[in-house]
Amino acid sequence: MTKQRLVAAIDIGGTNTVFGLVDLDGQILLKETISTAHFPEPEDLVHGVCEQIDLAMRLFDSKYVLAGVGIGAPNGNYFNGTIEFAPNLKWKGIVPLAKLFSNRLKVKTVLSNDANAATIGEMIFGGAKEMTDFILITLGTGLGSGIVSNGEIILGHDSFAGEIGHVIMFPDGRQCGCGRKGCLETYCSATGIKQTYADLLMSRHRDSHTKVQNGTAKYIYGKALQGDADAITAFNQTGEILGLALANSVAYTSPEAIFLFGGLAMAGDFIFKPTIESFERNVLNIYKNKIKILPSQLNENNAAILGAASLIIKALNIS
Amino acid sequence: MTKQRLVAAIDIGGTNTVFGLVDLDGQILLKETISTAHFPEPEDLVHGVCEQIDLAMRLFDSKYVLAGVGIGAPNGNYFNGTIEFAPNLKWKGIVPLAKLFSNRLKVKTVLSNDANAATIGEMIFGGAKEMTDFILITLGTGLGSGIVSNGEIILGHDSFAGEIGHVIMFPDGRQCGCGRKGCLETYCSATGIKQTYADLLMSRHRDSHTKVQNGTAKYIYGKALQGDADAITAFNQTGEILGLALANSVAYTSPEAIFLFGGLAMAGDFIFKPTIESFERNVLNIYKNKIKILPSQLNENNAAILGAASLIIKALNIS
Repeated sequence: MTKQRLVAAIDIGGTNTVFGLVDLDGQILLKETISTAHFPEPEDLVHGVCEQIDLAMRLFDSKYVLAGVGIGAPNGNYFNGTIEFAPNLKWKGIVPLAKLFSNRLKVKTVLSNDANAATIGEMIFGGAKEMTDFILITLGTGLGSGIVSNGEIILGHDSFAGEIGHVIMFPDGRQCGCGRKGCLETYCSATGIKQTYADLLMSRHRDSHTKVQNGTAKYIYGKALQGDADAITAFNQTGEILGLALANSVAYTSPEAIFLFGGLAMAGDFIFKPTIESFERNVLNIYKNKIKILPSQLNENNAAILGAASLIIKALNIS
Repeated sequence: MTKQRLVAAIDIGGTNTVFGLVDLDGQILLKETISTAHFPEPEDLVHGVCEQIDLAMRLFDSKYVLAGVGIGAPNGNYFNGTIEFAPNLKWKGIVPLAKLFSNRLKVKTVLSNDANAATIGEMIFGGAKEMTDFILITLGTGLGSGIVSNGEIILGHDSFAGEIGHVIMFPDGRQCGCGRKGCLETYCSATGIKQTYADLLMSRHRDSHTKVQNGTAKYIYGKALQGDADAITAFNQTGEILGLALANSVAYTSPEAIFLFGGLAMAGDFIFKPTIESFERNVLNIYKNKIKILPSQLNENNAAILGAASLIIKALNIS
């Protein structure tokens, strides 16, 4: 009997690393979570993860063979297989993580940033299966993005393409963590909508600011569900800016669809309706009523691991 | 003796159509200009052009064979080989121009819009020969663009990608011919800088407006060369906005270089200096001091025909 192929999928986060084994249909046969911060050296994390993978593969040995490893990581450089100066990790400088895994597991290993992994995940296992041109926007603490054109992810000459969250929307706008002002992600992200909501409250109740700052985007969503006018306005303002940004984005790559992923995208019509309304109002004529804005079809709990798995499935061309 | 391959190159413009025969080294063996407006039906233009090409090929017959036809045209759809609703042409609706040529000349024929043709021209014969990721900006009456990623031009799902001229820079900005406001090309183009210069003069001399409106971008360049403060300021303001737009653009595709082509780009330091200064000031950290902003290396007189030739040379993979 021919053995079926599995891939190892690893998602490196600032707090936790999630890893697992995934088959070519996207079935997750193993999923584990360990603390990234627990490993001051990347070699130690690689050792720990590989021990677990080895053990699991021995259990699966009769039916499966390990075909490769895919890694999603902050500041991941696909070309070099490295994590480069990731501000949220303890590992400093340039970490050759793909090489550490491939040396240990003796299979091809690829690494990319989290947003690119999620994007390939959407293409292999999600809503973009039949698409060659689409954009994925991740709405989390910040705004990440991956752009697929001609069936390939756009990496750019240095693997750092797809930073739509850092398009400057308002040159004198909100201070961004990148040091500049008015970046899209200062408005359209969990952080952004919290600020917008706080600003709306502040304009009427001077004392409510602190409370909102400690809340979450989910809290604002809950408020909107209850009919809170400020919460609904916060979603509308966020969608207005996001729609304009997406209208500008399609002038670059004319995608078939744009997928929204992450916490804010879970707010359904509260975010999709004003975004689509602003998009269609602001977009160039030739793109009007042609481009779908859709929720990601990946389950948020498994998106990171399926994204990492997709990276290697795509690289091996075995989907 | 094996015959060398030639391609026919055709650039359809609102006023004139330029066509010719080009070898794989970019040598132009024939170049002719005819009036597009003279042909109310596209079939008549195709007939006229093909007669000339047939005649020339008979002269070259002993040494050359026709390998294909490349066409640059306004509103060109690469996937369908059609010109679609081009506002500057007499031919209305959808014109299957590539098919008309391939039926007549019995060789593969490809068609794309002018900016994409110029972009492939830069890749095959210009400054981007060794590049897989770059952007070309054409600064003419409007602002056109072509984006190359992973060695391929980004066409998008409908062949209408690469409209950077219609990114909205200022939501309440200048009226654009597309019906919206604040598009990049209303500021950064020959038309845009004329408006900027006129606005600068108007702010001091109420009577000078008409005169400037009848001038050209070249006139403003001449003024700048003479040290005219308003002309120099007009270039600086144009470069400031262009630099910001390019800083935003690289967040999409992280190119190795951006080439500027066309009349305004001929103004040298007057436009490049403020553009580069603004670009480096506005660009995200990870892209700083990495991305070259360069003048196109194609001679403006031959760029259109070399661009059209490049389309088919690239499609046949014979460069």
